[in-house]
Amino acid sequence: AKSNGYVQTGRSISVESLRPSDSFIPRHISNAPACIEGKMAKDCGFESLSELIDKTVPTHIRKQTELDLGQFTEAMTENKFLEHMQELGSKNVVNKNFIGMGYYGTLTPTVILRNLLENPGWYTQYTPYQAEISQGRLESLLNFQTMITDLTGFPMANASLLDEATAAAEAMTMCSAKANGKKPKFLVSDKCHPQTIAVCTSRAEGLGLECVVSPEADFDFSGNDVCGVLLQYPATDGSLNEYGSVIDAAHAVNAKVVMATDLLALTMLTPPGELGADIAIGSSQRFGVPMGYGGPHAAFLATAEEYKRIMPGRVIGTSIDQHGNPALRMAMQTREQHIRREKATSNICTAQALLANIAAMYAVYHGPEGLKQIAGRVHGLAGILAAGAKELGMSVKSDLFFDTVSVNVGGGKAAGVVEAAVAKGYNIRQLDESHVSIAFDETSSLEDVDVLFSVLSGGSASFTAESLAQGVTCNAGGFKRTSDFLTHPVFNTYHSEHEMLRYLARLEAKDLSLCHSMIPLGSCTMKLNATSEMMPITMGEFANMHPFAPEDQAAGYKEMIGNLADILCEVTGFDAMSMQPNSGASGEYAGLMAIRAYHRNNGDYHRNVCIIPVSAHGTNPASAVMSGMKIVTCKTDAQGNVDIEDLKVKVAKNAENLGALMVTYPSTYGVYESRIDEICQIIHDNGGQVYMDGANMNAQVGLTSPGLIGADVCHLNLHKTFAIPHGGGGPGMGPIGVKAHLAPFLPSHPVVPTGAMPAVDEKKPFGCMAAAPHGSSLILAISYAYLVMMGSKGLTKASEHAILNANYMASRLSEDYEILYKGENGTVAHEFILDVRPFKDSANIEAEDIAKRLIDYGYHAPTMSWPVTGTLMVEPTESESKDELDRFCDAMIAIRKEIAMVESGQLDPVNNPLKNAPHTQDVVMAEKWEHPYSREMAAFPIGYLKDFKFWPTTSRVDNVFGDRNLQTTLCCDDISAYAQAE
Amino acid sequence: AKSNGYVQTGRSISVESLRPSDSFIPRHISNAPACIEGKMAKDCGFESLSELIDKTVPTHIRKQTELDLGQFTEAMTENKFLEHMQELGSKNVVNKNFIGMGYYGTLTPTVILRNLLENPGWYTQYTPYQAEISQGRLESLLNFQTMITDLTGFPMANASLLDEATAAAEAMTMCSAKANGKKPKFLVSDKCHPQTIAVCTSRAEGLGLECVVSPEADFDFSGNDVCGVLLQYPATDGSLNEYGSVIDAAHAVNAKVVMATDLLALTMLTPPGELGADIAIGSSQRFGVPMGYGGPHAAFLATAEEYKRIMPGRVIGTSIDQHGNPALRMAMQTREQHIRREKATSNICTAQALLANIAAMYAVYHGPEGLKQIAGRVHGLAGILAAGAKELGMSVKSDLFFDTVSVNVGGGKAAGVVEAAVAKGYNIRQLDESHVSIAFDETSSLEDVDVLFSVLSGGSASFTAESLAQGVTCNAGGFKRTSDFLTHPVFNTYHSEHEMLRYLARLEAKDLSLCHSMIPLGSCTMKLNATSEMMPITMGEFANMHPFAPEDQAAGYKEMIGNLADILCEVTGFDAMSMQPNSGASGEYAGLMAIRAYHRNNGDYHRNVCIIPVSAHGTNPASAVMSGMKIVTCKTDAQGNVDIEDLKVKVAKNAENLGALMVTYPSTYGVYESRIDEICQIIHDNGGQVYMDGANMNAQVGLTSPGLIGADVCHLNLHKTFAIPHGGGGPGMGPIGVKAHLAPFLPSHPVVPTGAMPAVDEKKPFGCMAAAPHGSSLILAISYAYLVMMGSKGLTKASEHAILNANYMASRLSEDYEILYKGENGTVAHEFILDVRPFKDSANIEAEDIAKRLIDYGYHAPTMSWPVTGTLMVEPTESESKDELDRFCDAMIAIRKEIAMVESGQLDPVNNPLKNAPHTQDVVMAEKWEHPYSREMAAFPIGYLKDFKFWPTTSRVDNVFGDRNLQTTLCCDDISAYAQAE
Ligand SMILES: Cc1ncc(COP(=O)(O)O)c(C=O)c1O
Ligand SMILES: Cc1ncc(COP(=O)(O)O)c(C=O)c1O
Ligand SMILES: O=C([O-])O
Repeated sequence: AKSNGYVQTGRSISVESLRPSDSFIPRHISNAPACIEGKMAKDCGFESLSELIDKTVPTHIRKQTELDLGQFTEAMTENKFLEHMQELGSKNVVNKNFIGMGYYGTLTPTVILRNLLENPGWYTQYTPYQAEISQGRLESLLNFQTMITDLTGFPMANASLLDEATAAAEAMTMCSAKANGKKPKFLVSDKCHPQTIAVCTSRAEGLGLECVVSPEADFDFSGNDVCGVLLQYPATDGSLNEYGSVIDAAHAVNAKVVMATDLLALTMLTPPGELGADIAIGSSQRFGVPMGYGGPHAAFLATAEEYKRIMPGRVIGTSIDQHGNPALRMAMQTREQHIRREKATSNICTAQALLANIAAMYAVYHGPEGLKQIAGRVHGLAGILAAGAKELGMSVKSDLFFDTVSVNVGGGKAAGVVEAAVAKGYNIRQLDESHVSIAFDETSSLEDVDVLFSVLSGGSASFTAESLAQGVTCNAGGFKRTSDFLTHPVFNTYHSEHEMLRYLARLEAKDLSLCHSMIPLGSCTMKLNATSEMMPITMGEFANMHPFAPEDQAAGYKEMIGNLADILCEVTGFDAMSMQPNSGASGEYAGLMAIRAYHRNNGDYHRNVCIIPVSAHGTNPASAVMSGMKIVTCKTDAQGNVDIEDLKVKVAKNAENLGALMVTYPSTYGVYESRIDEICQIIHDNGGQVYMDGANMNAQVGLTSPGLIGADVCHLNLHKTFAIPHGGGGPGMGPIGVKAHLAPFLPSHPVVPTGAMPAVDEKKPFGCMAAAPHGSSLILAISYAYLVMMGSKGLTKASEHAILNANYMASRLSEDYEILYKGENGTVAHEFILDVRPFKDSANIEAEDIAKRLIDYGYHAPTMSWPVTGTLMVEPTESESKDELDRFCDAMIAIRKEIAMVESGQLDPVNNPLKNAPHTQDVVMAEKWEHPYSREMAAFPIGYLKDFKFWPTTSRVDNVFGDRNLQTTLCCDDISAYAQAE
Repeated sequence: AKSNGYVQTGRSISVESLRPSDSFIPRHISNAPACIEGKMAKDCGFESLSELIDKTVPTHIRKQTELDLGQFTEAMTENKFLEHMQELGSKNVVNKNFIGMGYYGTLTPTVILRNLLENPGWYTQYTPYQAEISQGRLESLLNFQTMITDLTGFPMANASLLDEATAAAEAMTMCSAKANGKKPKFLVSDKCHPQTIAVCTSRAEGLGLECVVSPEADFDFSGNDVCGVLLQYPATDGSLNEYGSVIDAAHAVNAKVVMATDLLALTMLTPPGELGADIAIGSSQRFGVPMGYGGPHAAFLATAEEYKRIMPGRVIGTSIDQHGNPALRMAMQTREQHIRREKATSNICTAQALLANIAAMYAVYHGPEGLKQIAGRVHGLAGILAAGAKELGMSVKSDLFFDTVSVNVGGGKAAGVVEAAVAKGYNIRQLDESHVSIAFDETSSLEDVDVLFSVLSGGSASFTAESLAQGVTCNAGGFKRTSDFLTHPVFNTYHSEHEMLRYLARLEAKDLSLCHSMIPLGSCTMKLNATSEMMPITMGEFANMHPFAPEDQAAGYKEMIGNLADILCEVTGFDAMSMQPNSGASGEYAGLMAIRAYHRNNGDYHRNVCIIPVSAHGTNPASAVMSGMKIVTCKTDAQGNVDIEDLKVKVAKNAENLGALMVTYPSTYGVYESRIDEICQIIHDNGGQVYMDGANMNAQVGLTSPGLIGADVCHLNLHKTFAIPHGGGGPGMGPIGVKAHLAPFLPSHPVVPTGAMPAVDEKKPFGCMAAAPHGSSLILAISYAYLVMMGSKGLTKASEHAILNANYMASRLSEDYEILYKGENGTVAHEFILDVRPFKDSANIEAEDIAKRLIDYGYHAPTMSWPVTGTLMVEPTESESKDELDRFCDAMIAIRKEIAMVESGQLDPVNNPLKNAPHTQDVVMAEKWEHPYSREMAAFPIGYLKDFKFWPTTSRVDNVFGDRNLQTTLCCDDISAYAQAE
């Protein structure tokens, strides 16, 4: 090495060592250091991690080349990524938006922004299946349900749906179900948002219904074939319309009335429940949730008691615990598609819990008076706009409106006015060639109205908003609301920031999240949701984009989504992606609809049989039904693989009509079936398409891919493999990848045409299946972050470590538990099933007892009784450290010892720590201790708890009581009153 | 009202109702709603709040007009404020910085950014006086101390100082103290940072020392008058110099050696402790803490055991609790100025705990290997820069350096090169007319080096950084570090994000903060630190500014600081402000130094007597001594007021030499002395100046003001009245306001000249007293936020509600406790003292027992034994809701009942819940319960705890054991080993 004089001794510098060192890979993959990785592989009985992988992933489906992610092949550092997002953000033009159409500017109270939306204590929670360690978010979701019922005037609501448009479609399904599927027509008012109409129309297709879109006046009830109607209140053009007669007409033929509505408007307007509607749906976005270029937001559905058995989604309810104390829980989980499978009326699984919590907290913070004040202001500004438009000699479409005014700007002039507004940084909506509509929201101001006057007048108006104000009166005509709402103390207490902060902190403290310990839920992939991944979603340039803003304003989003699609194509081995589906189940539906469209396009209208292995997730059959498919079940063999002989039989029987196979890979049993390619071949040979459920992609990325294996379409749960946090039950994203032949059929959108990404020439979209063009676009940034910060090598390594960690645990646990399914070389995939069924006989201990006992040990239970009843399925993910895996294994082994003590009689068969689990502070600190084991054994059974103990806040929840006394809103001042229900 | 046609009925719109409704005032002032306010006033025995205020604040000092805050008179909404800050931020030019001089770019790991710096669970904590509910931050601060001792090679370090320059000055004081004040000279190397030299020189002034600044070679030890020397390693120009001989020379005459150093450099270089230095000081800023235009950052001071009694600041130590379990605590709190008053060797009180925690967590996250990697990269880039400079035919000042290279760019050319760099968006430093220096940091890259080559070459260089790299070798000459550091497991475990996240969460969960309940510490004003106030400090445009960036790059900062100064002038009734002091105590020092300079400017060199009431905070006398004043104490009367007769006597005795009076208003006893104006008059009549301690400004804002009352100077604890969070013991800001005659004397700065704001023509600064021109500029944004979001009316209302809340509590508690001091109409100010001394006799219960018992009730204790020994001082602030005040009162009343039970013999005199408090989970859940009261009484003595229980993680800490076994670093792998020390 040439000496430059200043140095005498020392080692020469490598350029590599001068690269930024804030590499994300070792931050994400906890056991990345070579010494740890090597030791763990050895503990699993292999020389190295690569040997373990070679023995686990079938050779003939192994990807032979490294992932080629183009410019993103090399991992970006965390800091570079954040700079990159700032640059992308700067390419978005964040105009002031008056477009409306279901998306409004809103101010997320910063105390909620920071302590809920940006807080891993909230966003890394899982769906509250384990009620005892979820009372915080259960309370918040009960607040959400109460808020929805109060505002809509119905007694029941669920804890969120995916978006307003799919909520309308879900309501349509309910109407059809109420008519026992015997009335195929659903009448839709043409004053609904276009995306709502599009989604209902598409969804009707699959269900064999027909959406008839027309003015309400033209609704035809004469055929006794109408199951329901959909009205919008206020309508998409802002008008408030008298729906009394159409409601009467519908009811006269026993058709149900669905009303799409707006929560803020309902603080001023008579609620749908009081107007005679049967179901209300809508979005809670404008209650503090940023527009995010389309989502995520929590949609809602409220209805009457009589619909409770067909209400889609999760519903939180009150109950009591083992000791009779009040406790909350998910009341409707047993009615989900999990159990009902092909008989389910909806496939919704992941919903929008985090966003529902934000909306609920927004109402808690503002209270009824605060909300009325906001609504009054919004309405007032709209009133002034209307008055001004008239002053300018323009007519308004309707004199009754809440926040949106449609103005006749003169024949052919609307486009020019919209352009003039854009030139001033204001987005407004063009309704038709002579009308624009202008929607106000919480962020609008008097100054904005002045700017809009100047736009309308084409120069400067001779008056100001302020000068007009006093001449304008608020008016909701006959729609003025008279009933109270949000009277419960929870909506009338936490109005100062300290009170709110502490309420949030109190609820958070009740809930176990990834901030505390691993959440080893099989099939859920609860991996690290890294801070740098989360940061872009609260950058204004991404958060404040309206989905229907002119496309050239969204250049940053376009670039990001395009990059993401390219990366995901390479990762999946597919040719094109659709970013529209908002959840895994939505992805299933979209994929099957694409297959359906493909078959139909080939003239194969009859190809409607869908083969689904018994091991499939419950959403699979539910989605298949929604796509109009007939389900044929196929067995699995003793190793957990698809029973190929049975498959052949079923295929042979249905060869003519074979539409698709739905298959999960690795299987839901945690096994890499080596004959998967053969399975795909059988389907293809018989004219069918292979739908792959991508829930287990975390065992595939970089090692193999759905495309390579032979699938035609696959959804990706971005909220599993690709690092979107679970948010306590959503948001998620379920984009689908497809082979080229399916690309033309990917969904589009009525406002912003989409389709395959990268785009294809031929476009024959099966329809539209979400309110927003690219679903919950905002959180795509999270997966994008994950992918580009991991890069090609990091992504592959993540899959390898997911497998390593699972095998390490399986091997540590295999002395004490039976691992139900293993691959050919005795290894498992990225997850595995512990068979705890034998303990039922030996000690009367069931999976649930172990799950609840794990709470005492500080852990969330693995997936319980799925995919195999009575078992536990463990998925560690690559983000967990060996220390953490060991702690969990220690806990499981200690529990096994406790079971042994029951078996041997050392512990009482009934009064033992497993049956009594979880143990609360109340119980452990009670004056009287009536158990034959110690208090310490109850609550501190293992050493690491001395360092940190997470307490359940309720004893085991009584589901039977809750079912018998279904109560799904805050009904009275004192929550303890619930306990007296029975 | 004119009808606009579209409306038929309804109420007319007021323009007021159309203004944005996200008003901050009711979010901050919890009891703002008129119905609550009115009821509380009545409960206090007054018709209205205004009557209560009229009866409480002396009429003759009442401000007669509303605060006139100019454009900020009207409160900004939260959203508008955030927009305003974005606009101000956009006026800052955030260049890449290579200036060095103690401030470096750094990447705050986002997991730390979000979960610590942006987390109210961390930033709203108080100084860990109540060890039992502070074990989390105590552990983190112990990590900090361990990190400092490991890196510097000394056995002891404190838990932060205010900045590097004042740390140097504190070390100077230690050297002087070691020489018993008998050696007045302190020799300072001219290779120290200019701000360090300036602060030491100024500080020497007050202390009667002399700083002699010269090259080390010229140090003159011959007079036996040198107490110490200050060297910088690496030096300000980047050079690594051989200090062996100067150290030997110093030690030969028993002078002490202070070394200013750099933590990142020390990962490569032999530490000061091994080089023979006696004290090391420096800044931990580059360990993950943003530059923030000068602060806040945690400075450090490490030294040998023998200095422990004179070490300034707080020191965390290990001890055991009541049950012999290991526990952490503030070991040195008793050595603070609180107790030692005028004998204190330092006045530091609020320090930089939050920033020390960030720096410590940065080291925990990176570990020794990660830090070495960063250092290696920084050093490598510097090496390449040096090599390239030589290729360009330039010489470098020193061939030995760590991160900073000084290049000779040719006579007279340095300024032009600096300008050329700025033109490319790069800030470098001009050392003299022919030299520039370029400092690298964690954020620097190879590409940056290329840009710098093009700057140096004045065009494009014929080589690239990458092409040079292989020819360059790393070299630390004889300085190469050989010793290990950060070997403790805590620095070698939490390197993945999940592990780090959970470590942070685990520590956070141990600490009570404002997220849990009110912290009613008298004199500390623990008010809401609102989210919107906190948001700007992590905006890049503010966080990433170098304090010595060219002034025109800081236009946004300038505007903000200027606005803030204007507002604070109006609030205080003064003519000018200085933003330099970093804490209340620093403000005291600055104010007294300004008074001193004023007297001297008048020829009154003899005016050096400072009268201080006995009730004053300990920092007052400590600051006075540091300013070279002689302290004369003055009594207080039975009502807690200054004893005016005694004051007159003291003034008369010292009239000739009277320099100043220091007085707190309202008094530290929580009383508005009505004769305060008379007191000021007496001082003025005798040629003295009135220094007002502004700690109690929360009872003055808008109602009266220091200027109105007659003070000449006053500091403001922005971390009390003006909403900067306490951060577990800092950061704070203590700007001072002065009357016009003192404005010329306000401090300036050697790099960025400052002085009075608004500026005055005459400038005769007493010197410089902080490393950065405007102190911890970054957090000025928090106070600015508070002021502009409250506006004139909100600020005044806040003071009124602070008084209301205190009186409400005093009135509720007065049946059970004696309120020690009250004003003339029986009211208290914004805080009050509960006299619990009688219980010592009646039940052997002391203030400490009540304080610890409050922990069981979920509360942080009020201020204990200050200002009156054996009492508790309660300050609720305006941010607490009536519900919260009631809960705290309920707790105090319940405790009073417990005391009564001890008095009556119902509870055991020794084995009772007060003496045994606080009760941990361990204790309450122990198998054996050996107390004559119940477990429930121990831990759940009151109803509201059922909703949320905050647990202390240790029983009462044994201070005596800790003092006897002083251990202030992590010494071994297992923390439990500490318990065996004795
Ligand atoms: C195997 C499998 N398929 C489908 C789904 C449904 O995905 P989502 O909840 O996103 O709708 C899940 C969800 O857990 C799953 O595990
Ligand atoms: C009355 C009083 N004066 C001065 C101070 C010192 O302020 P700081 O801690 O900011 O140095 C305090 C701190 O609590 C105080 O209460
Ligand atoms: O330390 C004090 O805040 O007094």
